[in-house]
Amino acid sequence: MMDGFGERSLFRRVAIIGLGVIGGSLGMALTQGRVVEEVVGFDRDPATLEVALATHTVHRIATDPVEAVRGAQVVVLATPVSLYPALLAQIGPALAPGTIVTDVGSTKRWVVETMSSQLPTGCFFVGGHPMAGSEKRGIEGADRYLLENAVYVLTPDEHTDPEALAQIEGLVMAIGARVVCLAPAEHDHVVALVSHLPHMVAVALMETLGASGEHRSMATMLAAGGFRDTTRIAAGDPRMWCDIAWTNREALLAVIDQYQASLARIAEAIRTYDPKREGEAATEAAADGALPGVGVGSGSLGEPCRGGSGSSSELSTTNKLSAVLAHARQARLAIPGRAKGVLPGIHEVIVTVADEPGIIGKIAQILGAQAINIADIEILRVREGHGGTIRLGFAHGHEADLAVDYLRDAGIIVKRI
Amino acid sequence: MMDGFGERSLFRRVAIIGLGVIGGSLGMALTQGRVVEEVVGFDRDPATLEVALATHTVHRIATDPVEAVRGAQVVVLATPVSLYPALLAQIGPALAPGTIVTDVGSTKRWVVETMSSQLPTGCFFVGGHPMAGSEKRGIEGADRYLLENAVYVLTPDEHTDPEALAQIEGLVMAIGARVVCLAPAEHDHVVALVSHLPHMVAVALMETLGASGEHRSMATMLAAGGFRDTTRIAAGDPRMWCDIAWTNREALLAVIDQYQASLARIAEAIRTYDPKREGEAATEAAADGALPGVGVGSGSLGEPCRGGSGSSSELSTTNKLSAVLAHARQARLAIPGRAKGVLPGIHEVIVTVADEPGIIGKIAQILGAQAINIADIEILRVREGHGGTIRLGFAHGHEADLAVDYLRDAGIIVKRI
Repeated sequence: MMDGFGERSLFRRVAIIGLGVIGGSLGMALTQGRVVEEVVGFDRDPATLEVALATHTVHRIATDPVEAVRGAQVVVLATPVSLYPALLAQIGPALAPGTIVTDVGSTKRWVVETMSSQLPTGCFFVGGHPMAGSEKRGIEGADRYLLENAVYVLTPDEHTDPEALAQIEGLVMAIGARVVCLAPAEHDHVVALVSHLPHMVAVALMETLGASGEHRSMATMLAAGGFRDTTRIAAGDPRMWCDIAWTNREALLAVIDQYQASLARIAEAIRTYDPKREGEAATEAAADGALPGVGVGSGSLGEPCRGGSGSSSELSTTNKLSAVLAHARQARLAIPGRAKGVLPGIHEVIVTVADEPGIIGKIAQILGAQAINIADIEILRVREGHGGTIRLGFAHGHEADLAVDYLRDAGIIVKRI
Repeated sequence: MMDGFGERSLFRRVAIIGLGVIGGSLGMALTQGRVVEEVVGFDRDPATLEVALATHTVHRIATDPVEAVRGAQVVVLATPVSLYPALLAQIGPALAPGTIVTDVGSTKRWVVETMSSQLPTGCFFVGGHPMAGSEKRGIEGADRYLLENAVYVLTPDEHTDPEALAQIEGLVMAIGARVVCLAPAEHDHVVALVSHLPHMVAVALMETLGASGEHRSMATMLAAGGFRDTTRIAAGDPRMWCDIAWTNREALLAVIDQYQASLARIAEAIRTYDPKREGEAATEAAADGALPGVGVGSGSLGEPCRGGSGSSSELSTTNKLSAVLAHARQARLAIPGRAKGVLPGIHEVIVTVADEPGIIGKIAQILGAQAINIADIEILRVREGHGGTIRLGFAHGHEADLAVDYLRDAGIIVKRI
């Protein structure tokens, strides 16, 4: 299948149906990364097709799905999963024997069952789910590097053709994603936990806010970063989420049940929380001249709630709330942060600057003149005409140290963090 | 009180007890913004005090809280709220008549009651709660511009001295924050909704993940951006959150109850969701050659779940799940985004670049040479030695247009978004 096409091309032709965030990002990675000879794209939205061509998301566009899949060795379904049956009925007759169909849908058990019963004989199916997304929707949210270093789950089962699986693994690795193989049902249970449950949790938060009557407008105004972060995913596409809820109903309802039980336990811990002993401990310590906890978040960093006093072990067993909160904190800190790529541990520097035009250019120039590469940069906060705070990241510690020295020499307020 | 001290100084001396994120940020804004003559800081952690001096967070440090408050016109309590009583017992005798005590605690009804019963006669209390925070803790997370443009709630009640309130309002406005006045109980109900409930919701998510047995390690590995965002606040300081739960128990338990009822309704909507009619509609439409929804997130952007088909209105009333999801989405989109400052609407450009050392410098130089000011910059994704995607923000649309032209002329792949 691959002979005669340059070393770097795994396939002659890949068709992508649906050029949203994932379909578009995959297209860009395949096209711009020269992974395949030709990427053909279809989307029902003509404007999307135009953008797809202009941004080198695909090599060629098709005006209908049947035209898109003709002659393709690999067909990627990147539409809502509920459309797969209708789509397959349409493109099935046009699929050549040996064609590998794969998808990027968020649930897998239903998809694998549906595909195996509907795919034409002689074609192969390999279920896939890249664990990546964007706050922007559609092709505008597609990014050449979105799938770079992302976990890309493939869900073979006992009917999956090993050679077809190996081919799709090769394709996924070629775009720099990390392959994880899971059974379809296990995939669905895991994503119910880490993706579908959080979505419904966020939706319920928005519902609660919406039902808050007289407090609603003030609450919306005061919604700070924590609320915004926690509910961000609630803005997800309702159509896609209906599909997810429908095709992963059993696992999703099971984890919602577990979640409700957890929250009920937390509410009970709040109801029965007794701060008196802690209060006494604090008062005694204060009388000794050592105020525990003064300096929130500095001295108390990393301590469990009841830590720091002589009777901490006893208190921690009698006070469930503090144990629950400390446990959640530890568990959350153990989750790796959002990787922007395969950068090694970033070494950071915080710069506080006056808001003069070209200040970023000035910083970049100072460091560029010393051949210090800025690996990451982020404007944290700014007041126009006044000043702002910029975070700079460097791949190596000595670069960060040098950056501090050179920027300080130039009269810029800078600190290593 | 203010005569004899330059026009820009509202007070001669402000004392801040507790130099964590909020106390430290307030200190930096007052000190570096020249809002007051002298800021004296105390924190029980000696290393924090050292950093506070080195970073111009305060003008002077004190070795105990009593020394810190001596001669101060305003005393800011920025420790966990449960420490206020002990702290007040310690500093009370050192407060001069007329001193205004204020705080930055997360709950207000309990605080206002406690302070009004324990504050020495002749002193005034004004409750405060700046709605801002940082992922970093302690003074390391303090930022000169953190409170810039942030909502800063003050909670006067019928006992509050109007002149003291006016003075604190002046202080808050001087650092660029936006004053919102709320009754203590209303404040507590609103923050229960937008801050304390989301925290417990995130803690329950971590608990559910922790109890997932065999799936736990895979789930942690696959936790994508949505899960990380939704649970980020669960890493909050357990001590502070015990204090919050304790001092806002009633309002918090009430909103948890409402929340559990919301989630139960959503679970019921998932249980009773019937996609058949939608499936039929999709199949019929596909047979007509018009595949609805192909191109996830492009054509379907902004549509409610059941929209786009002729029978949408009927379907939307019979299908609760789609209505709930669409409603949550609209409500979430209505919440303003995280403001980094008072920048006017940013005009954005996406640049895809090779990862050559100094590429940020090159971009900055090209734009600097044309006097185009980069108002915001963010590295979205990067693959070391390969390339990456950078977002540039400009204050004005024509700057963004010019930036596209000049960068394109330099051979850089760039698009306006």
